[in-house]
Amino acid sequence: MTLLLDTATQDLLFREARTANTFTEEPVTDEQVQEIYDLVKYAPTAFNQQPLRVVLVRSAEGRERLVRHMADGNKPKTSTAPLVAILAADNEFHEELPTVLPSFPQAKDVIFGERPVREQSAALNAALQVGYFIIGVRAAGLAAGPMTGFDAEGLNKEFFADGEHSVLAVVNIGKPGENAWYPRNPRLEYDQVVTTV
Amino acid sequence: MTLLLDTATQDLLFREARTANTFTEEPVTDEQVQEIYDLVKYAPTAFNQQPLRVVLVRSAEGRERLVRHMADGNKPKTSTAPLVAILAADNEFHEELPTVLPSFPQAKDVIFGERPVREQSAALNAALQVGYFIIGVRAAGLAAGPMTGFDAEGLNKEFFADGEHSVLAVVNIGKPGENAWYPRNPRLEYDQVVTTV
Repeated sequence: MTLLLDTATQDLLFREARTANTFTEEPVTDEQVQEIYDLVKYAPTAFNQQPLRVVLVRSAEGRERLVRHMADGNKPKTSTAPLVAILAADNEFHEELPTVLPSFPQAKDVIFGERPVREQSAALNAALQVGYFIIGVRAAGLAAGPMTGFDAEGLNKEFFADGEHSVLAVVNIGKPGENAWYPRNPRLEYDQVVTTV
Repeated sequence: MTLLLDTATQDLLFREARTANTFTEEPVTDEQVQEIYDLVKYAPTAFNQQPLRVVLVRSAEGRERLVRHMADGNKPKTSTAPLVAILAADNEFHEELPTVLPSFPQAKDVIFGERPVREQSAALNAALQVGYFIIGVRAAGLAAGPMTGFDAEGLNKEFFADGEHSVLAVVNIGKPGENAWYPRNPRLEYDQVVTTV
């Protein structure tokens, strides 16, 4: 046994945690989201670029604008989850580098001067942060329902008028409701995933 | 306080965990990697696609083949870390869907029949899994040193002759050595990242 996490924490974050498809009406507060963010913000990104941006959808009007871009199968749960978060990559993250990477402020132009380089880096690193965020939601005792079934271009335009953001995932957040889970799907075995050279 | 993790676990996984740049000589065993994998494999991916593939570099010859594709600044630590893992997206992950998604085996062809769709999905979901893997390394009491500075096309060809894999990150793994850390870089504030509609 090499893991330092106790079994309850392993279960909370990974083994018993499940993607929820229904939720109770218990609200998710801004304070909860801030605690989640203030924990997972420390996880690493390349050049400390932190490209993830989060839009919390709280108003009825915002919910309506969101749901119409979701795939049909995702509309009911996106309509009813206590909180929905839009997770996007900021393709202009490099503007912050002089502040967040004080040891190498020139990275803003030397490494990330070209938009295609930024887009590729933001997509990878914001996706890492989506993974951290999902773990953080679970660490707060909440269930996450991450979804990628949506009209990405529609969502980008709807919520990021600047044209500089790419939505990667939309995540329902709340306490799991009735029949929240599908049966657990099989995971690949170690030997199917890991090889050694 | 809404987080269910105790402070020591928050520190272990996020707050005190740091990207290591030097390592002790203490080996990292296959058993440790298997425990990490068998924990983080439960974290979610879209359609349970699990596109991450891992190559552990253990032989001197494998290390030499790896290091020559790394950026110069990453060569010394990649040469000396106790274990280096190459993390890649398998762009043919859909072949496993009939097994790992028994409720919707047709997804293999209906959703993922076209290579560009698979590549985009594998890149996002394998990146989520890179994030989970880094958290798992930390859960095992080890330090991760994730790197994206390498010749990606060179690594793809060197370690995946089938042409079906895209390397996303290379991660040094071990116990932190002397002067392992750079100073902690600033994180973006909540209000810089999270907005509400």
